[in-house]
Amino acid sequence: MIAKRMTNIPKSFIREILKVASNPDIISFAGGLPNPGLFPVQEIQEASNKVFSSDGMSALQYSTTEGYLPLREYISARYKEKENLDISPDEILITNGSQQGLDLLGKVLIDDNDGVIIEKPGYLGAIQAFSMYNPEFYPVSLENDGVDMKELTTIIENNAVKLFYGIPNFQNPSGVTYSTEKREQIAQLLDKRNVLFIEDNPYGELRFMGGTKKSIKSYLPDSVLLGSFSKIVSPSLRLGWIAAPQTILEKCIIAKQASDLHTNYLSQRILYQYLTDNNLDNHISKITATYKMQRDIMVQSINTFFPGNIEYTKPEGGMFLWITLPNGMSAMKLFERAIEKGVAFVPGKPFYVNDNSDTTLRLNFSNVTGENIQKGIEIMSKIIRFD
Amino acid sequence: MIAKRMTNIPKSFIREILKVASNPDIISFAGGLPNPGLFPVQEIQEASNKVFSSDGMSALQYSTTEGYLPLREYISARYKEKENLDISPDEILITNGSQQGLDLLGKVLIDDNDGVIIEKPGYLGAIQAFSMYNPEFYPVSLENDGVDMKELTTIIENNAVKLFYGIPNFQNPSGVTYSTEKREQIAQLLDKRNVLFIEDNPYGELRFMGGTKKSIKSYLPDSVLLGSFSKIVSPSLRLGWIAAPQTILEKCIIAKQASDLHTNYLSQRILYQYLTDNNLDNHISKITATYKMQRDIMVQSINTFFPGNIEYTKPEGGMFLWITLPNGMSAMKLFERAIEKGVAFVPGKPFYVNDNSDTTLRLNFSNVTGENIQKGIEIMSKIIRFD
Repeated sequence: MIAKRMTNIPKSFIREILKVASNPDIISFAGGLPNPGLFPVQEIQEASNKVFSSDGMSALQYSTTEGYLPLREYISARYKEKENLDISPDEILITNGSQQGLDLLGKVLIDDNDGVIIEKPGYLGAIQAFSMYNPEFYPVSLENDGVDMKELTTIIENNAVKLFYGIPNFQNPSGVTYSTEKREQIAQLLDKRNVLFIEDNPYGELRFMGGTKKSIKSYLPDSVLLGSFSKIVSPSLRLGWIAAPQTILEKCIIAKQASDLHTNYLSQRILYQYLTDNNLDNHISKITATYKMQRDIMVQSINTFFPGNIEYTKPEGGMFLWITLPNGMSAMKLFERAIEKGVAFVPGKPFYVNDNSDTTLRLNFSNVTGENIQKGIEIMSKIIRFD
Repeated sequence: MIAKRMTNIPKSFIREILKVASNPDIISFAGGLPNPGLFPVQEIQEASNKVFSSDGMSALQYSTTEGYLPLREYISARYKEKENLDISPDEILITNGSQQGLDLLGKVLIDDNDGVIIEKPGYLGAIQAFSMYNPEFYPVSLENDGVDMKELTTIIENNAVKLFYGIPNFQNPSGVTYSTEKREQIAQLLDKRNVLFIEDNPYGELRFMGGTKKSIKSYLPDSVLLGSFSKIVSPSLRLGWIAAPQTILEKCIIAKQASDLHTNYLSQRILYQYLTDNNLDNHISKITATYKMQRDIMVQSINTFFPGNIEYTKPEGGMFLWITLPNGMSAMKLFERAIEKGVAFVPGKPFYVNDNSDTTLRLNFSNVTGENIQKGIEIMSKIIRFD
């Protein structure tokens, strides 16, 4: 009875981990959750009261597939202001979080066995979403400043590749940010070979150190850019967007209509009211100040407690840090022992396609208190040292 | 660059019509919108304030793919109370309106060229959603008491059919309701031939005359049932559900996670609070009383103004009425002239697969005032009479 495409979908190991980690006695570095203490609860409540009082009837009615125009105009204006990017509101489609953007792009772009480049390790949600459309994945190794350019060039030169999906800022799971040079080189290479770049940027505004880098779309205006309010306002609203050239966006709108008619309109109205009445930059500053502190404690704790042969990324923003264990050590085994001692994280395995690498793991720092970060890292270090 | 599946999707003619019909000077029978004057704006505002004040932080965080458990428990209990159906909360997945239910079921069940029976005329949203997965459609004619059983039997006996999608109550676009006998016969036939029934029931609670009929799922416990709060509370919240046996629901949950992680959680919390604090049955009584009045005015106006050779359905609930013109008359031509005179409706064409029938049309009565219903029908009748 079940369709063949469902056999391609990696089993969600992370869902199982998150069930274990939801036990409040466990220190969890496993999730990818923003710090809920920073949610602007009162401001969103005020915004919602304004929407109900001023225009409740219309805010509860069906709406357009493209999304609320003033919200698309806000996003367009913010791209102009922050990145000097010219993206018209007509090139923006509001989606249920950027995850739905991935599903719609998969639906609209991927035929059976189309070549899709992803980062190695790569974002699990993208692997899952694209797998539904049965592509041929080409993983490219991540280095500390972005993908390995030699590998990327070899893959593109030797295979029919349609698109490249990547997260150039504070990548999930690794925390890596692409250097300006690599962004330029990637843009040149893809342009020459006519490969579409899908630039996922859910964390870009969460930079707490280092200089801002230009988006790849600024070098490749015909590429696709995904954005989200999940990490800078609230994830439960499920509000993200696709910014893409008209030819692609038109098809995404048709696919969106068939998928769920339109995105929750009440939430679009509430979010827009919130953005109008509040200063988003000030709010983001509060988030980044907190995440920097949490990240610093994690880096410092690792530095203090972990043995020297363990490598880790030092993210300039975002929510994740990536650990590489020495050869011979198993992240899965470490996971099992850590859970027994009350600490959870995500072993690297699910982030790889066609690869059984077991020496890496992902740590989230945004949703753990400073005290628990220190405690959790210390517990992990004891297991590592006496393994 | 664009995937092949996108070439199968019927162009959304209705979207274009709705753009024209959104002109406030036009009397529109075209949309499928509930009457916004009946939305419980104040009650939902109160519910949302309660959620923000009591549990705002958690209501703004990521949540589970399955959906908010108390909401699933409410749906389960309502099935028991209203229809004596035993559907456990674990067999319910909250979706972005029931439209997303269709997309997820298509993803999970339909392989290339799988046989899918739909009603003729059929719900456009289902045709669009399923078309993405490239099925072989088998349309079965609708009569006044449900599908033509002879046609259905012949199709099932002569083809490899995997599933049958239908709307047994106040069907969209026709307003037709299946008789109890046909429900029983369909259940027997599908059971024998091992064909899965997908029972879409967005309008079932909007009955304003005649006796309630048992759902097909009550005869076929292993079938799939789709529900929605769009027509009984508010469509902008995009809250619907799939009720399905575990084996199918498990796959839907995996597909849902890949599609958009989870349904808007803030809206789930607000809706549940609204349902807890208010009597939904009383609210639905208000809706059905109004829709009955609107439907009566439409039936009466048609009876008064239209020539006798025009057939129309007399729905016992829901939002639509279906007109069949005499042979030789064109619904598309009628549409063009009606628009010029300030009246919009949907010609039947987009509701047919592989069929160029041009003698039918759909009229919506839920979102038009009594006065405008009378006026609009009179205008249409003049065009018909002097065509």
